[in-house]
Amino acid sequence: MKKIIQLFTAILLLITTANATWFNNDDKPKTATQDNKTYTLRLAETWPSNFPIFGDTTKKFKQLAETMSNGRLKIRIDSKNKHKSALGIFDFVKSGQYDLGHSGSYYWKGKDINTLFFTSMPFGMTANEQHAWFEYGGGQELMDKVYAKHGIKSIIGGNTSNQMGGWFKKEINSIEDLKGLKMRIPGFAGEIMAEVGAKPTNIPAGELYTALDRGTIDALEWVGPSLDLRMGFHKVAPYYYTGWHEPGSELQFLINLKKYNALPKDLQAILITAMKLSAYDMYAHSNDASAKNWATMKKDYPNIKVKTFPKAVFAKLRAANDKLLGELAAKNPLSKEIIESRHNYLQKIRAWTNISDKAYLNSFD
Amino acid sequence: MKKIIQLFTAILLLITTANATWFNNDDKPKTATQDNKTYTLRLAETWPSNFPIFGDTTKKFKQLAETMSNGRLKIRIDSKNKHKSALGIFDFVKSGQYDLGHSGSYYWKGKDINTLFFTSMPFGMTANEQHAWFEYGGGQELMDKVYAKHGIKSIIGGNTSNQMGGWFKKEINSIEDLKGLKMRIPGFAGEIMAEVGAKPTNIPAGELYTALDRGTIDALEWVGPSLDLRMGFHKVAPYYYTGWHEPGSELQFLINLKKYNALPKDLQAILITAMKLSAYDMYAHSNDASAKNWATMKKDYPNIKVKTFPKAVFAKLRAANDKLLGELAAKNPLSKEIIESRHNYLQKIRAWTNISDKAYLNSFD
Repeated sequence: MKKIIQLFTAILLLITTANATWFNNDDKPKTATQDNKTYTLRLAETWPSNFPIFGDTTKKFKQLAETMSNGRLKIRIDSKNKHKSALGIFDFVKSGQYDLGHSGSYYWKGKDINTLFFTSMPFGMTANEQHAWFEYGGGQELMDKVYAKHGIKSIIGGNTSNQMGGWFKKEINSIEDLKGLKMRIPGFAGEIMAEVGAKPTNIPAGELYTALDRGTIDALEWVGPSLDLRMGFHKVAPYYYTGWHEPGSELQFLINLKKYNALPKDLQAILITAMKLSAYDMYAHSNDASAKNWATMKKDYPNIKVKTFPKAVFAKLRAANDKLLGELAAKNPLSKEIIESRHNYLQKIRAWTNISDKAYLNSFD
Repeated sequence: MKKIIQLFTAILLLITTANATWFNNDDKPKTATQDNKTYTLRLAETWPSNFPIFGDTTKKFKQLAETMSNGRLKIRIDSKNKHKSALGIFDFVKSGQYDLGHSGSYYWKGKDINTLFFTSMPFGMTANEQHAWFEYGGGQELMDKVYAKHGIKSIIGGNTSNQMGGWFKKEINSIEDLKGLKMRIPGFAGEIMAEVGAKPTNIPAGELYTALDRGTIDALEWVGPSLDLRMGFHKVAPYYYTGWHEPGSELQFLINLKKYNALPKDLQAILITAMKLSAYDMYAHSNDASAKNWATMKKDYPNIKVKTFPKAVFAKLRAANDKLLGELAAKNPLSKEIIESRHNYLQKIRAWTNISDKAYLNSFD
């Protein structure tokens, strides 16, 4: 009996010690796991199932988050095929219908004009320059300010790399050639094109090839070789113009803030880190895919002509851009703050890009 | 007595259940934490205490790894001031004296020539291009092949961005101007300079400013504005040459493979993810710091003259580069494999860079 009680006491002691080691929330001992609940987070993405690169990014995020959390985070991804609302992601996450989203910030400019500035802006920063702005130039803080109002946290979600200016059926030699030009070019860049007399039109992705082939439109922009190859535009429009309107488009992850705040600190860190690494990885992926697809396009269609708008055309487009930005800044103080932050940062970092990557790339042709 | 035994059994059962939930290695239940031991990993870095940017990268890595693992990983960083051996990192990690390292791969070329190719190569890939090569072009697999022989895993460790060609006291107008030029330029780039008749010399960092000021050397390369500003070279050498020899230098994290393999899978994933995100973050940090420091330099010393070597000089340097690479390839089949992988990837991805970022940066001056 005495022995049994001794053993019993020893076991109780063991359990108490175990509790102290495993369950406590305070800092001692450091081996404590705060919380071993499983959190299932549902993510809605703008993209259809198995969409290349963009869809690979959410899969990569899921894999990282689940592995690092040893299954305490479960990520369930619903593509557009499931939730049926490509542009419903912001509302899904704001309302809590989904916990997470993957989309593009500039899609929400109709809901909040200040979301416009976190994807890419015409004549703006390249992907590298903008990554530096987000992390070290105040960009993330401004994005937090815009999204907190909606109960959302927004995190970088992957860069498409510099987007091409698009596929044109005829050459653009002067601003006159843009007047009346029917072009699929959505968003703010479309507004700029309208300012100089073009006719921006919106056509569903599935109908673009036929529209370009039949001359319903004269030109269109999509992404770059990474995603243009499968669309086949190079078969029906020979001029491939270099980019100016989205020099480094960053997708975004969205997180419902209430859900985020309810997570233990370690899972919060895992979530954000998995998102950011997936985002940077998508930039490498985009560059790789564009490199490979561009090689394929050139081989199969050696007559593709790469062109850049003449500087006089850019001068007009830039004047239209500055006018539209000026109007936005005049209407909304936070817009003004973000436009100025981007402008000032670009001035500084482009001076560096010019003596580093640009000088290097121009040193040998 | 019977009651005590019943209680005893209940407690035993409790412990057994607890074991099933907390200790098992299999997949059920999903909330299980595989392993709640604390792993203390010691990291040796090449840099002195509080070295900017490079040292911030290991601190960022430590913070991410410890937070994501909720303290199950403890990272202890020893800087050069502590371990006294800036270039001992490879041996430290190989022998297991340290678990982790943070340094530059090309420092180990005397120990294994194939480590040379994973930092940056003259006339090679930019940071973006090389990131794509590491992740999608076979670079990581080749690095694994080289380092596995030494019982080490190597992971990207942060990019300095395009390195400047260096500070020169006089202008370089032809290859003749390089002949006899005393320049601090270490490593493979130094060998190239020697091929064209320059006199590469190695001088400790602390003596460089005085050596340049007094004319003991005629030129030196360091990094870029991010780290050059504090060295003060712009005060004594007016010509700042754009880069060619390290177009995107990637640092490296080293992991002792035995130690890595003994970690549970979730901590392995946390370790690698924290390293890679810290690495990408350092690239943003480098670009930001160079942008800010370059603005400061230009303001304080408006007479700094940014120059690029004439194309004829580059032609000679490139010929020397190709000759030396050819010699390395002939000596070692794995060197040949890596050199060819880098070359072929560069051909493909530069064609993309030329029509994207390069065309964009050249569109408006």
